[in-house]
Amino acid sequence: MAALKVNNSMTTSSLLLVVLLALWAAPLAVVAGDPDILTDYIVPATANPANITGAFFAYSGLRGALAAQAPENFTVAKASMAEFPALNGQSVSYAVLSYGPGSINPTHTHPRASELLLVLDGALSVGFVDTAGKLFTQDLAAGDVFVFPKGTVHWQCNTGTQPAKALSAFGSAAAGLVSLPATLFGASDIDDVVLAKSFKTDVATIQKLKAGLAPPPKKP
Amino acid sequence: MAALKVNNSMTTSSLLLVVLLALWAAPLAVVAGDPDILTDYIVPATANPANITGAFFAYSGLRGALAAQAPENFTVAKASMAEFPALNGQSVSYAVLSYGPGSINPTHTHPRASELLLVLDGALSVGFVDTAGKLFTQDLAAGDVFVFPKGTVHWQCNTGTQPAKALSAFGSAAAGLVSLPATLFGASDIDDVVLAKSFKTDVATIQKLKAGLAPPPKKP
Amino acid sequence: MAALKVNNSMTTSSLLLVVLLALWAAPLAVVAGDPDILTDYIVPATANPANITGAFFAYSGLRGALAAQAPENFTVAKASMAEFPALNGQSVSYAVLSYGPGSINPTHTHPRASELLLVLDGALSVGFVDTAGKLFTQDLAAGDVFVFPKGTVHWQCNTGTQPAKALSAFGSAAAGLVSLPATLFGASDIDDVVLAKSFKTDVATIQKLKAGLAPPPKKP
Amino acid sequence: MAALKVNNSMTTSSLLLVVLLALWAAPLAVVAGDPDILTDYIVPATANPANITGAFFAYSGLRGALAAQAPENFTVAKASMAEFPALNGQSVSYAVLSYGPGSINPTHTHPRASELLLVLDGALSVGFVDTAGKLFTQDLAAGDVFVFPKGTVHWQCNTGTQPAKALSAFGSAAAGLVSLPATLFGASDIDDVVLAKSFKTDVATIQKLKAGLAPPPKKP
Amino acid sequence: MAALKVNNSMTTSSLLLVVLLALWAAPLAVVAGDPDILTDYIVPATANPANITGAFFAYSGLRGALAAQAPENFTVAKASMAEFPALNGQSVSYAVLSYGPGSINPTHTHPRASELLLVLDGALSVGFVDTAGKLFTQDLAAGDVFVFPKGTVHWQCNTGTQPAKALSAFGSAAAGLVSLPATLFGASDIDDVVLAKSFKTDVATIQKLKAGLAPPPKKP
Amino acid sequence: MAALKVNNSMTTSSLLLVVLLALWAAPLAVVAGDPDILTDYIVPATANPANITGAFFAYSGLRGALAAQAPENFTVAKASMAEFPALNGQSVSYAVLSYGPGSINPTHTHPRASELLLVLDGALSVGFVDTAGKLFTQDLAAGDVFVFPKGTVHWQCNTGTQPAKALSAFGSAAAGLVSLPATLFGASDIDDVVLAKSFKTDVATIQKLKAGLAPPPKKP
Repeated sequence: MAALKVNNSMTTSSLLLVVLLALWAAPLAVVAGDPDILTDYIVPATANPANITGAFFAYSGLRGALAAQAPENFTVAKASMAEFPALNGQSVSYAVLSYGPGSINPTHTHPRASELLLVLDGALSVGFVDTAGKLFTQDLAAGDVFVFPKGTVHWQCNTGTQPAKALSAFGSAAAGLVSLPATLFGASDIDDVVLAKSFKTDVATIQKLKAGLAPPPKKP
Repeated sequence: MAALKVNNSMTTSSLLLVVLLALWAAPLAVVAGDPDILTDYIVPATANPANITGAFFAYSGLRGALAAQAPENFTVAKASMAEFPALNGQSVSYAVLSYGPGSINPTHTHPRASELLLVLDGALSVGFVDTAGKLFTQDLAAGDVFVFPKGTVHWQCNTGTQPAKALSAFGSAAAGLVSLPATLFGASDIDDVVLAKSFKTDVATIQKLKAGLAPPPKKP
Repeated sequence: MAALKVNNSMTTSSLLLVVLLALWAAPLAVVAGDPDILTDYIVPATANPANITGAFFAYSGLRGALAAQAPENFTVAKASMAEFPALNGQSVSYAVLSYGPGSINPTHTHPRASELLLVLDGALSVGFVDTAGKLFTQDLAAGDVFVFPKGTVHWQCNTGTQPAKALSAFGSAAAGLVSLPATLFGASDIDDVVLAKSFKTDVATIQKLKAGLAPPPKKP
Repeated sequence: MAALKVNNSMTTSSLLLVVLLALWAAPLAVVAGDPDILTDYIVPATANPANITGAFFAYSGLRGALAAQAPENFTVAKASMAEFPALNGQSVSYAVLSYGPGSINPTHTHPRASELLLVLDGALSVGFVDTAGKLFTQDLAAGDVFVFPKGTVHWQCNTGTQPAKALSAFGSAAAGLVSLPATLFGASDIDDVVLAKSFKTDVATIQKLKAGLAPPPKKP
Repeated sequence: MAALKVNNSMTTSSLLLVVLLALWAAPLAVVAGDPDILTDYIVPATANPANITGAFFAYSGLRGALAAQAPENFTVAKASMAEFPALNGQSVSYAVLSYGPGSINPTHTHPRASELLLVLDGALSVGFVDTAGKLFTQDLAAGDVFVFPKGTVHWQCNTGTQPAKALSAFGSAAAGLVSLPATLFGASDIDDVVLAKSFKTDVATIQKLKAGLAPPPKKP
Repeated sequence: MAALKVNNSMTTSSLLLVVLLALWAAPLAVVAGDPDILTDYIVPATANPANITGAFFAYSGLRGALAAQAPENFTVAKASMAEFPALNGQSVSYAVLSYGPGSINPTHTHPRASELLLVLDGALSVGFVDTAGKLFTQDLAAGDVFVFPKGTVHWQCNTGTQPAKALSAFGSAAAGLVSLPATLFGASDIDDVVLAKSFKTDVATIQKLKAGLAPPPKKP
């Protein structure tokens, strides 16, 4: 944290003003807290509560992604409310992220949660841009943690020659994902003119980007 | 809303299953509500509460944008907590959006609120992409309202030859803004390789996009 | 923290005390924030999600109120969750308020949201009373914005000879309305003695107020 | 709860529709839950956390009101965050309500919490009006509990010849109080014309109401 | 943070630093507020809203516990959402606690609300342990109030020779209860070895504790 | 609710009743959602926002615990708001749990978040007791995930002969910890008689438990 330089000629009352201004700014930046559900957990409507056992609270679907050899590209395996219904109401979820050498988890946002990434193996270069447009980047080694604030555009990149693996926790059971390449130039197929005007470029560039992000043609 | 076709051969028990499944899905889609502050309003720390008058709760900063002739390009004027401190704790804010003919409010997200847009003058074509990648578009006339869900990528476009004006309300005093062209290819200056890999294109295309979004050179 | 010694003269440490007292007051006045739903939007149970299009997110029901000539009296048109189901979970809604010359939006409260009023046409005199009983009033011109804190008694009055029109945004999809004349002396028909004792007046005065607020007799 | 009559000629599919409509209505009426603070309790900024003892969490200010003989009129003693700072962040508070024979707790609202009233001694007639304008009344004996929903206009009346005493709990440390007689016609001094137009009566009636609610003149 | 040394030569700038450190600590201890439902109250799905009367909002189930002679042991009667459905969505509930001479409300936690206890009759010794392991105890007389922060281990003890009675309010309609003797050593029947290792004792001691907490054998 | 048997003689109306009862139960079990802060992140009051870099959002304090050889006993390393200030307002945190063969993470609760445990190495037996007193246990292998609902008593046990390691994510930046052995019988030093009465045992047994949990005497 930055050292605080106090000019000797600064009067006590002007110091007080600085403190009051800091205080006034504080409510802009305050923790809203983590709300409760009104039961311990939520039993699916199709299940008989009497038949719920410990197995309902367990999920083995991440085993493969954690144990697997590194993939060539970037892949993700999730344990969110969609895959693991017991998370409904518990305000937390996981994803396992696997990065082949040189691969990237492309620029994206999560509309409903911050992401707390932990590097399990290898090394990653990560970054995000805050809503004031300021870029933050960091190089991470195995064991390092990095937090991507909710709603900000962020990415992770494996710039090394070895595979990398990370685990991410989210403060929501359903953080949501907006992949920016796919959302902007992918299958959603936003009008070319809208995109060209948004990105202050020509339609040909938009179409080139769309072509690059199109799914590969299926083999006969 | 879709008409519900019930096949005669559908048994009562299978109908029941449908209903229970709908019920089970419902908690995924539930209103979290609008929380309170613990006072009527928040007096800035630098102000004397005894000096607060009705003027503290009033803001005239939107007058110009509402009265002005249409601009050539897209412009926005805000009445959020930053401009209008009395909004602190009130969970609501405004923006006035002015669109020259053919102009666009480029693709963006708001990390902290849904947007409820009302067309005041002219006509707009609007759209958003949900987190499942589905595109929704709509043509709006003066007097029409459209809601952009929180965190989704959205835009508005004045495709006509007349200027247009809209007002947007947000369910937060500080909705935040992530302009995707500026955040991805603008002054934040994300590494070219990160962007090229994210958007599955070459560095030259990224640099072309960055050049298009760069601020114009200052005149001497 | 160390025990606080206060010197008799106006010293730095007594200034510190002022600041600490301000700090202690701060948690009383803190933003609770705007909570999320766990999906982008909420599809009504009677609708097939696959059939949802952009039209679901649009509402044209305010067109008339916005375009209409000014009414003789005060009238209101709403775009809340009841009229516009897509607002469910989006924490925001609108109302269009039309005031004939000399008309009033009578004293009322909204139990579930603050109101952010924008004068579209004409001029309004507005006011509210906070929970400490302090009155705040303000004269507003076209383009002005005024915020009425959640739960406070407030009103707007068109004191001029021209019609006026305003738009209000609420930080809830269902702000609720308690009209105080109607609730206290209208069709709910609270016992005359309860009202006479509450308002420290006689039953005759209560009955006179009730008569004035009664609906006009239907014509045969 | 009303018995459910099912007509035999009602088809399965129409029953299903009823259920789906009920399901669709459900999200309108859902519990938002009780949020946390991020510490066990909040130590005032002017206090040394090391000096906090059990006494900080105790409050004796209600002893008098609970033990006292019944007053002639209605009186209230509170244990909210203002009187009992340890309640800060605990989302709960109390009030002791004492009613002389024939006295009333006049029509009022609480902007920030529902009220759960328990009759300790005597009998009370209570009522509230919901936001749809529907009146609910009930006669309560000692030991009875009644809930007044947040933001609704409500009152309690001791219609008997014996004194009565009640305790109210609020789901907020700072529920707030809007006394409607005092707010509308008391010291806040809202403009007579605003009130006359709101209540569809003449200025003379407003002035009569104001006179009745004015504080008694101080003795020389 | 390092221990705070205050010496006589403390400069204004170091005082400022103290204040800024206090300010920085403040967001750790901030009120999250009390959220709303989006209706005034919640009608059970099995009831016809048109048939709801004042009786729906009233509950007489505490009359017996409040009027009864003191029991030999500790007993509790609740008015929470389970017993009193109108509390659904109102974020508040009650319990009546009756203590025979020498009896105890054993160590427990409430996962979803703070408890605000009011001594109605007699005297109680109460205590809780915060999450830092610090013990807080207090002796309470009739009319005294004590707040037990959410989630902390707490208890009340009637150490006198007279019966005692208390009322507790909770800032949730469903505070939940984890009785620690019953949960740890009672019918849930946690494995003896898990408990012996947890409590750093031998299995025989665990089995002795379990035997003491077992329900008495039923008579033939 | 009992398992749902649908037989042919069940009438449509009784099926409808089952569905309506399920619907009525639903609001008891609803997601409250994950609230926002009103900024992207919270800069400590002692820091200059302009000096914040990517390093502020990174934390290396878990490296040691993740890389270390297994300990003899159970140990924990945390990345919560206390250790990693950037988590303030982000509603998520981590802990690394290391278990020697035969060791246990003793019975405890977290007052402010659910825990989502992922087994990184080895095998664990885990369990929790819900507020209805029902025990849930499960054996977990490497790669398995288990969710412990907020506020419930839970534990993990390494019953094997190999060390084990796990990572836990919490849906709060400050989940809090109540270790039940330490809180009940440890340094907080609750009165022996309170404990003996709570646990329905004799003071000697309480003192034996306290002795077992006392810290080892310091060497001279």
